[in-house]
Amino acid sequence: MIQQTTIYLAQRHRGFHLITREILHELGELPATGILHLMIQHTSAALTLNENADPDVRRDLENFINKLIPENHPVYTHILEGSDDMPAHIKSSLFGASVTIPISNHQLNLGTWQGIYLCEFRSHAGNRQLVATIYS
Amino acid sequence: MIQQTTIYLAQRHRGFHLITREILHELGELPATGILHLMIQHTSAALTLNENADPDVRRDLENFINKLIPENHPVYTHILEGSDDMPAHIKSSLFGASVTIPISNHQLNLGTWQGIYLCEFRSHAGNRQLVATIYS
Amino acid sequence: MIQQTTIYLAQRHRGFHLITREILHELGELPATGILHLMIQHTSAALTLNENADPDVRRDLENFINKLIPENHPVYTHILEGSDDMPAHIKSSLFGASVTIPISNHQLNLGTWQGIYLCEFRSHAGNRQLVATIYS
Repeated sequence: MIQQTTIYLAQRHRGFHLITREILHELGELPATGILHLMIQHTSAALTLNENADPDVRRDLENFINKLIPENHPVYTHILEGSDDMPAHIKSSLFGASVTIPISNHQLNLGTWQGIYLCEFRSHAGNRQLVATIYS
Repeated sequence: MIQQTTIYLAQRHRGFHLITREILHELGELPATGILHLMIQHTSAALTLNENADPDVRRDLENFINKLIPENHPVYTHILEGSDDMPAHIKSSLFGASVTIPISNHQLNLGTWQGIYLCEFRSHAGNRQLVATIYS
Repeated sequence: MIQQTTIYLAQRHRGFHLITREILHELGELPATGILHLMIQHTSAALTLNENADPDVRRDLENFINKLIPENHPVYTHILEGSDDMPAHIKSSLFGASVTIPISNHQLNLGTWQGIYLCEFRSHAGNRQLVATIYS
């Protein structure tokens, strides 16, 4: 059985955001066993799994990634949409547009410390749209 | 229902290549609702989703990634297959060998600006082989 | 049809480890056609596909990634769990917590040179837990 739904995330500031609760709220009751696939329909943002506890992890991720993939790098030619745009495309492909998570006993079977992150790479992005597909 | 097919991509030069149309042509008619999983059967190439419009994005990606993960780094010992080989392995794992895309209304439910990229990391690669699996 | 099982991997040293045989042993007989999804339930380790032959690739990956995402970077504030912890979180999201592999003719349909890697990013981690889900 397949269920598919679109999820709209309100605008967030640039950085890594824990969205597990919001996703669960949008999905409603989960099947006993299955898989959840989430894909973000944008090329300057990403989805990933990482630590759900200490917010320092999310801040350090943001600060380190901005050093690793900086704005205004001399090789960039795609600069018309702002200095944060080309780095956002690179980060989007390295973090990835989708996550796939097992469902067991009607719950996302994440590890104790795992949560779903929205990775917002634009400085002034709008709302973000996800497609959720559940197989059961 | 599961459909599985092998897709052969002709040799391309090193860089990022938009292959959405070619993939859709190979897949033929899509089911009403489901998931497409594509995996590349190589360890010196990758698949990713990124911007389908401005080719500058693909060129900047190639140029930046070559700076980030350079050839001839002093830590490399796996050098017998050429100076582009070990960087290709690293890039392959960071970009990822597969993409998973929702299917809705008989179409890939990508965002407006999203396309499928073949990431070719070898300077003189041959053809590339993908396995496509559709769940519906 | 969905089958789901938990796989426990014994403690390994920091680095990249080929685990294809161990995963196949744990899974037992595979269906004729389908998909295997493997997710690691940790945020300081990852799963990826890469070369299954020369162990130099795994050593070079470890050495290069440690240079690219170093310990003790000045931006890190999440440092209470050791100098290897924050780099491990960053690497985990860049490599990714899961892999999805097609199953064909009762076998994982990997390329000739592809194997499944456990990426262990902590210097003194314990056992690692995976969830395997097979669709057929």
